[in-house]
Amino acid sequence: MQRYFVQAFDGDTVTLAGNDARHISRVMRMAAGDSIICSDGSRTARCKLQEITNEKVSANIVEWMHESQELPVSVTIAQGLPKADKLDYIVQKGTELGAAGFLPFAAERSIVKWTKEKSEKRVARLEKIAKEAAEQSHRQTIPSIYPPVTFDDLLQKGEQYQLKIVAYEEEAKNKEDNDLPNVLKTISHGQSILFVVGPEGGFSKEEIEQLKEHHFHICGLGPRILRTETASLYFLAVVSYETELMR
Amino acid sequence: MQRYFVQAFDGDTVTLAGNDARHISRVMRMAAGDSIICSDGSRTARCKLQEITNEKVSANIVEWMHESQELPVSVTIAQGLPKADKLDYIVQKGTELGAAGFLPFAAERSIVKWTKEKSEKRVARLEKIAKEAAEQSHRQTIPSIYPPVTFDDLLQKGEQYQLKIVAYEEEAKNKEDNDLPNVLKTISHGQSILFVVGPEGGFSKEEIEQLKEHHFHICGLGPRILRTETASLYFLAVVSYETELMR
Repeated sequence: MQRYFVQAFDGDTVTLAGNDARHISRVMRMAAGDSIICSDGSRTARCKLQEITNEKVSANIVEWMHESQELPVSVTIAQGLPKADKLDYIVQKGTELGAAGFLPFAAERSIVKWTKEKSEKRVARLEKIAKEAAEQSHRQTIPSIYPPVTFDDLLQKGEQYQLKIVAYEEEAKNKEDNDLPNVLKTISHGQSILFVVGPEGGFSKEEIEQLKEHHFHICGLGPRILRTETASLYFLAVVSYETELMR
Repeated sequence: MQRYFVQAFDGDTVTLAGNDARHISRVMRMAAGDSIICSDGSRTARCKLQEITNEKVSANIVEWMHESQELPVSVTIAQGLPKADKLDYIVQKGTELGAAGFLPFAAERSIVKWTKEKSEKRVARLEKIAKEAAEQSHRQTIPSIYPPVTFDDLLQKGEQYQLKIVAYEEEAKNKEDNDLPNVLKTISHGQSILFVVGPEGGFSKEEIEQLKEHHFHICGLGPRILRTETASLYFLAVVSYETELMR
């Protein structure tokens, strides 16, 4: 069944406008009586369509759905600004895999630079991608897209998280030192985690030293060298495995 | 190349018996001169078959392999033919994450159809993508790209693998029944695994029934609905986690 995120429920009815109304009327060509699923971020309900126009769609709530597709832990992906449209891909796949938010940051080896104007456009585009991916993967919440920060800001923001992990390929080479499983064994329900990935060129020695000083765990993700857009997907998959399938 | 786990190497020769011998002679129908890969858990070697009976197979070691970047298990991704260029993406990312091979198959709900001519062009393109991704991720081996098969062929080819797993989203809904961790706990060094993913529309009830009849394990990949191109990445990441980081 098609899913839509709504601003709010109004008693036992709900109203959809803008792109969602156009999607229901023109793309899906739904009719009164058809069913959709609506979520306001905290509650989800199966709804029956009442009135449909290209601008506005009204529906009645048929039943509240008690489901949880959300990860038991809140994972924010801090991504060193990558080239081209890689961030679009990281947000789409990371949303499918349960990420709670995405925080781009300008790393020493980030080649692209975001101006304030470009930043606003890109964040809006990433929010649209996250909304569509959240609907497609049947999630109740849309991940947050944060405007890009500097590396120093990233170190400061880290203080807001209960667990801070950095993916560092040099660490992958000495398997013995790899403590990702030990770190993940310690995470508990509701915990907030910040997972940091460098840009294409990786982190500089200085950046890694600063992250260590700020108590970030340095972890490898196996012996193969992963592209920057693949590291966060590996991490989210194993967090799901640890917290949703193994426990 | 088919891999077998052996008790020990005997100088520059190795002997396989029991199920492995039957597998080589009856299932794989190999002949003297064919190559296999043998591992005793610490060392891995490419071997050339010498004498073959249903009870006992002897082989000579051709070369020792130093494959520190390869997954300890051989995972082949059987992918229901998806739309557009999704297979390019599945092969690139799956290669980074350690897949040994990719086997496209025509599922009931596959929308695209590959003609023989298109198939040859696409396989050549996918081989190029796999080679580049293997180089980029510092792997010693390039994953195999197999030409597309029918669903019935897929069921038959499954006999060549020691473990067969199917990703099925319906299974994700009843968490209790989800036995992916139990299945992965059983895998051992050198084992061959076939992981099957449906196309965008998923599997039909009939296809799932046939897969069950052919002893494929039906597993969910967590409560969120993953796109067809994301399922194999989730699986490869958790296989790496289980066999490379946790052990």
